[in-house]
Amino acid sequence: MKKFNNVHLLFIFFLYFSGTTHSLFSPSSKSKTTAHPSATLTSNEDVKTYFFKQTLDHFNHLPKSYTKFKQRYYVNFKYWGGANSSAPILAYLGAESEMEMPDEDFGTDNAASFKALLVYIEHRYYGKSVPFGSKEKAYKNANTLGYLNSEQALADYAAVLIYLKNSLHAQESPVIVMGASYGGMLAAWFRLKYPHVAVGALASSAPLLYFDNITPQNAYYDVVTRDFKEASETCYKFIRNSWSEIDKVASQRNGLSSLSQRFNTCYPLEQSDELKEFLRIIYIYSAQFDYPLVRNICKAIDGASFGSDVLSRIYGGVVAYHESNKCTVNAYKYTVAADTFNVYEWQRCTEIVMPIGITGNSTMFQPMPFSLKNYAKKCKKDFGVSPRPHWITAYYGGHNMKLVLRRFGSNIIFSNGLRDPYSSGGVLKNLSDSLVALSTVKGTHGMDLMAASESDQDWLTEQRKKEVEIMHGWIKQYYADIDALE
Amino acid sequence: MKKFNNVHLLFIFFLYFSGTTHSLFSPSSKSKTTAHPSATLTSNEDVKTYFFKQTLDHFNHLPKSYTKFKQRYYVNFKYWGGANSSAPILAYLGAESEMEMPDEDFGTDNAASFKALLVYIEHRYYGKSVPFGSKEKAYKNANTLGYLNSEQALADYAAVLIYLKNSLHAQESPVIVMGASYGGMLAAWFRLKYPHVAVGALASSAPLLYFDNITPQNAYYDVVTRDFKEASETCYKFIRNSWSEIDKVASQRNGLSSLSQRFNTCYPLEQSDELKEFLRIIYIYSAQFDYPLVRNICKAIDGASFGSDVLSRIYGGVVAYHESNKCTVNAYKYTVAADTFNVYEWQRCTEIVMPIGITGNSTMFQPMPFSLKNYAKKCKKDFGVSPRPHWITAYYGGHNMKLVLRRFGSNIIFSNGLRDPYSSGGVLKNLSDSLVALSTVKGTHGMDLMAASESDQDWLTEQRKKEVEIMHGWIKQYYADIDALE
Repeated sequence: MKKFNNVHLLFIFFLYFSGTTHSLFSPSSKSKTTAHPSATLTSNEDVKTYFFKQTLDHFNHLPKSYTKFKQRYYVNFKYWGGANSSAPILAYLGAESEMEMPDEDFGTDNAASFKALLVYIEHRYYGKSVPFGSKEKAYKNANTLGYLNSEQALADYAAVLIYLKNSLHAQESPVIVMGASYGGMLAAWFRLKYPHVAVGALASSAPLLYFDNITPQNAYYDVVTRDFKEASETCYKFIRNSWSEIDKVASQRNGLSSLSQRFNTCYPLEQSDELKEFLRIIYIYSAQFDYPLVRNICKAIDGASFGSDVLSRIYGGVVAYHESNKCTVNAYKYTVAADTFNVYEWQRCTEIVMPIGITGNSTMFQPMPFSLKNYAKKCKKDFGVSPRPHWITAYYGGHNMKLVLRRFGSNIIFSNGLRDPYSSGGVLKNLSDSLVALSTVKGTHGMDLMAASESDQDWLTEQRKKEVEIMHGWIKQYYADIDALE
Repeated sequence: MKKFNNVHLLFIFFLYFSGTTHSLFSPSSKSKTTAHPSATLTSNEDVKTYFFKQTLDHFNHLPKSYTKFKQRYYVNFKYWGGANSSAPILAYLGAESEMEMPDEDFGTDNAASFKALLVYIEHRYYGKSVPFGSKEKAYKNANTLGYLNSEQALADYAAVLIYLKNSLHAQESPVIVMGASYGGMLAAWFRLKYPHVAVGALASSAPLLYFDNITPQNAYYDVVTRDFKEASETCYKFIRNSWSEIDKVASQRNGLSSLSQRFNTCYPLEQSDELKEFLRIIYIYSAQFDYPLVRNICKAIDGASFGSDVLSRIYGGVVAYHESNKCTVNAYKYTVAADTFNVYEWQRCTEIVMPIGITGNSTMFQPMPFSLKNYAKKCKKDFGVSPRPHWITAYYGGHNMKLVLRRFGSNIIFSNGLRDPYSSGGVLKNLSDSLVALSTVKGTHGMDLMAASESDQDWLTEQRKKEVEIMHGWIKQYYADIDALE
């Protein structure tokens, strides 16, 4: 199974339940990340940890705006060609999770070819980059959480990068920013808003268009469905039919108890929705991150080693997912990372409002329409705030992106794996000569930004190679532009 | 004399005294603007006044951020071709003054040829667009003034324009934003930050590069000096020599009293600096706004009708400036618009930090170096805030602009009159094919955005014609791009 222990690219992925706002779902339960004993110390001798005195509020001049907090970032000097040769800087933009000491990744793989300085910057309010002195204080309420948003985060990144370039006398070193998922959106947005800081951006699996109804709400689940259908048409049908079967059993006398038993749940089910949610999550998790897992689940469902009725088949899929007979449903609860859960929820309850839902019967799931009203109600209850569903498109754009960016902006790679359900909200067509979409038919979420391994398939190696070539092209052009100006 | 009663383009210009932060200087004393009796009513029947429920703080999600205030804007429907034909929208971005009912201007001149909707949006904290219910409350202290800055203002403009396009079903209507001076910077920045809202920008006399030491501090006064030298080499020399002459007289017994008498001051001078500041301001005012006035002043100085010694000549220049023998020095005090003075000072004390000063002896003035230390001290004293002199370039860029924007962004006209001292901080060379500098040798500050008149010289008419042609080109290309997408 593919491991996700590349911590600074840890893809916490956000599932969307109709009418509820809960549910960051960390893949860390599937493949534990090893927390570094002390993040302020260096474990990797090439990488140094720093803290930047960051401004709390870049966009106002209230007395409180000037408050500072410590933002963590890491620098790997090993491959850098130095300021004198204006050697490039590759900057990883942190996203919605702690950024632990970086180990190996896409950048390290390629740093030598770029002679690049590697910089990794943690996102405000995550990990050690927390204002107000502690998470307890920072997460307290809307008055302290209010400064957590993407606009402030981008301004943080600009401040760190400008500071670094100045202090290394590397003003002419071109910076390329990169990130995946939410971090990929940040990378693309950073290039659009701070072109004077970054010459280009690699935005991996960034669902930039899953806002403000640009993308149909069903699109995410349509891809999940397509993935399973592709793995096995019969498997798809069994899953599709399983929901009503679960409902049927649940409605019978002792039905919930029977379901609890048949699915080996860790505790007696109180409602069938617990089971259905659990199943839905393992399907979308597999589709998003791990297509071989989709195949294994379907193999088990089709194989019927636990029995050939629908529910036994589905349970077989669960066992394949877990790769064991361990108890179910409860397991899901542990996957929610307690430490980041609330704080990314805050982002979802304010600006990161992605209307993902299920309507009609195009998917293999039961309908679960997105309801902004219920979503807002939950946010009001949890945080006392109302979501601003139109703000992201007001600030960053998104509608008519092809028209708008055809003659504006440059040097962004939008990479997507088409098996990733989030690819449905990604940029899948070139917007211009240098705003380029790189899609792989077989890819899943953010694969290209993970460290290369010998087991990688050719198409993935090829995708990474293309990305590196394009980025080399940006840098070459940048140097030529400098020379032309002098 | 050229009149400046075009209220929404009223160029309040900001002079820079070394070590002090005071001095917005409104030209309104030279040519009174007639305040509209009630700005909520329509005097011009083609123009309607509206108020938009604006968000106080776009960039945070603090409970207070969601506070609303009324932002005033005007719409002129007279020339508009309508939403069905995707007819364009010309939007004037308000700057650091009240925006009164628009009368005639560049837009109206050309609205028919564009079939354009004309929109005029007042800048937050000015005129009737004031948060917290009243100017008294809004201007109270840093806790209420803190939301006054260019980033919030741009987001305001985006919100109004998006709202307008939606409510008029004019989503496909291309928007071109325009403004002069600070408003010109806003227009250029708006196109760079909100390309999805505006297809282009006309930035007239926008000193975008007068930040963070991109432009030498002397540049402004070098242009003033050049203007006077061009008008008359002897006049330039008289002015240049006058300062030490004033110092000499002032240092004598009864010298100040003698100066007061010779310059017909409205009150007895307490120090010679009062007189010197007054003189400096009439010179730079004339150079910035009114070159014929420079010529008249020099004619009087050279003509020596009040006597041929230096001080009599200089007084002759003052009389020519006033076009009368009215008392001097005090007059300057009245030119400071009480209503906008403090609030733009706030902007200068936070982000709009332009290091303009005089060093060495390249100018016709005495040295007056820019001192960030003194500037900051004054801001601390006046508002309790410290300036952020690097923020504008961090957020908008500015350093290496030619390199950065060569391959990023499009559709901005940077227009400048080279006699305008602020042109020294403007973009005077094309950055790319569609980021175009249009300079006129004889132009002064923001002339192109004023209403055309029969007395306009050919080069000014020609400049406006070029601007209109370029803007028509943007719109044509935009329509072609839409067609190509469909």
